[in-house]
Amino acid sequence: MTTATTFNHKAQWVMDCCEALGKVSQSPAYVDRRYLSQEHKQANALVATWMQDANMRTWEDGVGNLWGRFESDSANAKSLLMGSHLDTVVNGGKYDGMLGVVAPIAVVKYFHEQGIKLPFHIDIVGFCDEEGTRFGSTLLGSRALTGKWQNEWANLIDADGVSLRDAMQSFGLNFDAVNACAIKGEDILAYLEMHIEQGPVLEAQNLPTGIVTGIAGAKRMLFNVQGMAGHAGTVPMNSRQDALAGASEMILAVEKVAQSNNIVATVGNIANHPNAVNVISGNTQFSVDIRSIDDKQRDVCVASLFAMCQEIAEKRNLVLTINETHAAPAVKCDSALMLQLEAATKLAQIKPFNLVSGAGHDAMAMADICPVAMLFTRCEKGISHHPKEAIETPDVAATLAVLYHFIRNF
Amino acid sequence: MTTATTFNHKAQWVMDCCEALGKVSQSPAYVDRRYLSQEHKQANALVATWMQDANMRTWEDGVGNLWGRFESDSANAKSLLMGSHLDTVVNGGKYDGMLGVVAPIAVVKYFHEQGIKLPFHIDIVGFCDEEGTRFGSTLLGSRALTGKWQNEWANLIDADGVSLRDAMQSFGLNFDAVNACAIKGEDILAYLEMHIEQGPVLEAQNLPTGIVTGIAGAKRMLFNVQGMAGHAGTVPMNSRQDALAGASEMILAVEKVAQSNNIVATVGNIANHPNAVNVISGNTQFSVDIRSIDDKQRDVCVASLFAMCQEIAEKRNLVLTINETHAAPAVKCDSALMLQLEAATKLAQIKPFNLVSGAGHDAMAMADICPVAMLFTRCEKGISHHPKEAIETPDVAATLAVLYHFIRNF
Repeated sequence: MTTATTFNHKAQWVMDCCEALGKVSQSPAYVDRRYLSQEHKQANALVATWMQDANMRTWEDGVGNLWGRFESDSANAKSLLMGSHLDTVVNGGKYDGMLGVVAPIAVVKYFHEQGIKLPFHIDIVGFCDEEGTRFGSTLLGSRALTGKWQNEWANLIDADGVSLRDAMQSFGLNFDAVNACAIKGEDILAYLEMHIEQGPVLEAQNLPTGIVTGIAGAKRMLFNVQGMAGHAGTVPMNSRQDALAGASEMILAVEKVAQSNNIVATVGNIANHPNAVNVISGNTQFSVDIRSIDDKQRDVCVASLFAMCQEIAEKRNLVLTINETHAAPAVKCDSALMLQLEAATKLAQIKPFNLVSGAGHDAMAMADICPVAMLFTRCEKGISHHPKEAIETPDVAATLAVLYHFIRNF
Repeated sequence: MTTATTFNHKAQWVMDCCEALGKVSQSPAYVDRRYLSQEHKQANALVATWMQDANMRTWEDGVGNLWGRFESDSANAKSLLMGSHLDTVVNGGKYDGMLGVVAPIAVVKYFHEQGIKLPFHIDIVGFCDEEGTRFGSTLLGSRALTGKWQNEWANLIDADGVSLRDAMQSFGLNFDAVNACAIKGEDILAYLEMHIEQGPVLEAQNLPTGIVTGIAGAKRMLFNVQGMAGHAGTVPMNSRQDALAGASEMILAVEKVAQSNNIVATVGNIANHPNAVNVISGNTQFSVDIRSIDDKQRDVCVASLFAMCQEIAEKRNLVLTINETHAAPAVKCDSALMLQLEAATKLAQIKPFNLVSGAGHDAMAMADICPVAMLFTRCEKGISHHPKEAIETPDVAATLAVLYHFIRNF
């Protein structure tokens, strides 16, 4: 019987690898590893040594993703693709992305040590840019793989004014040749991504792992509330056109719409003008990020939010304009793969539990060319993108056990 | 019969003077004249020429206020002090402060031209720093006059890191000698300040002038709302400790307390962290400015606001801390002077109307040493501290007529 305890030792190895990767950082004080940095190169080199120890052949592709192949002896074998990303946000955690690259290496290492042969290749990919920290555009690594590389990205610039094209050249890559690293969907059996949950649901369920049903679609909008600035002491309350007070009422409407429709919506960014202690706000802008696994439901919520906020604006004599800044449709995980993950979870003696991913992942891009699935690992208090991001070794062992059964029975 | 029409010509002169003063600015693009700047010196010099044309003796005192005296022939004459400030906010208007200096000069000019003698001196003062734009501390000019100059102000610094002490020295003044320019209350009959209303009340009443009953006391506080940052996609609504959503509910509470108590309260400044589109707010700070002509009522409102906001914080699992950053008691205008202004208003054939000043003025400081009164002039839409600040010439003529009768009958 192969369960979490089988993988105690390997789980510790995974934790050690994540610890080591966390030290490959552009800052001595915190984790910061961005696309096309020297630390990107160092991280690829380090992970490649672990892949090689697991008897994998390794290479770096034309966009900077790291690959490792555990080769099958079968003729015309297709490949089961696994992985996640090796880049990080600024002041991020040690497990977001990294766990999904290192965990499958640990299982392959186990297959190699046990002399287990498979009727398909296992390809593990460490994606180079999921977060978009450096150039502001996310999923560059996985979108290159799926042939969605865009010429206009050449002029994306980082905080120092360096273009993506020039940064690639300095790294030893050719922007114009990236499409050559696109892979064909027919060569891929499936893409499976392991990732920390980045939310508190598994912790509340007291479960080490969860099966993802899909990745929520997101819409982002910028709300601009135009009022009239005025003296804080001299304008009576009923003569005011206070943009910040109006925005506050709208922010509560965002919360209410999300709560009553069981989705998530967030106002994370706000800018107020002139933003002086003794001046009534004349203009307030805020972002709305709204997500649902059901695109239609999300759009109904957006429409209802617009109506509520327009009513607030009219009542307060404010002018509201709304611009959509981002829209990504929801991605469903493959139902057959979900059943395989459910069976694997049971074999690992864990209660199967399904949940939605509210965060975006490389799997969103990969869904363009092949069936995708995701396995989540519990993380402490749901904290992510933060130095306090933490996971427990026994949960990693459980993840490895599920992964083992998933691959063995594929 | 001396009414507004008597002063049509002088009113135009006042408008021209304000126009000329508006051009004495640290910026070619907008009005910006700060304490101890070269433009402060230029403005004093320019206004001094107007005073001298009205047969006034002029001097600059030890803090940088400009003085002009229209001397009485009477032995042991006391003086009627009038004026306002000559400094401005950044990107302010042409009348805030300036009108209150130039208008009494116009009336003195009229007395001089008509050969009218008075049994008291008229002193007109152009205060050097009412706004506190440069060093963050307000009413420096008038507080110097009343002997309230504070040694600890020596180290106040401006945006360039220059201390008040050094800036005074560069201007030709001695920080340590300022108290010598303090004046004695017994030499002053009264202080009368003319000022644009900076609010919409007179416009709504369709009146050119108004008599101020008092200056509202203000309390300023900084509210700090501590929540927990989190991923906008992964943390369910009911697990959130969203600082910005909590702050929004509190901002509406501020508005509600003010509305239901018929006072004014304003949240003008907000800072949110980490303020990223896809991150739930972990910390939000905002300012509260609350004003009333009745200090006791204001404090009851503050207490009620604290209770409401603490309840909001508890309900949302947030930690609220509140720090008071400023408190100034309300100042009542002298009731005898108010009656004199009422009589003068009637003589000018204008309907007397009383109103509260929500904004602070030099009169607040002057009230420490003598009885004070204020006369407001209607301003367009109540807009002030803004390039759109505007007044009408006939309203200035009305103001001059009231002022004339007030002085003649003093």
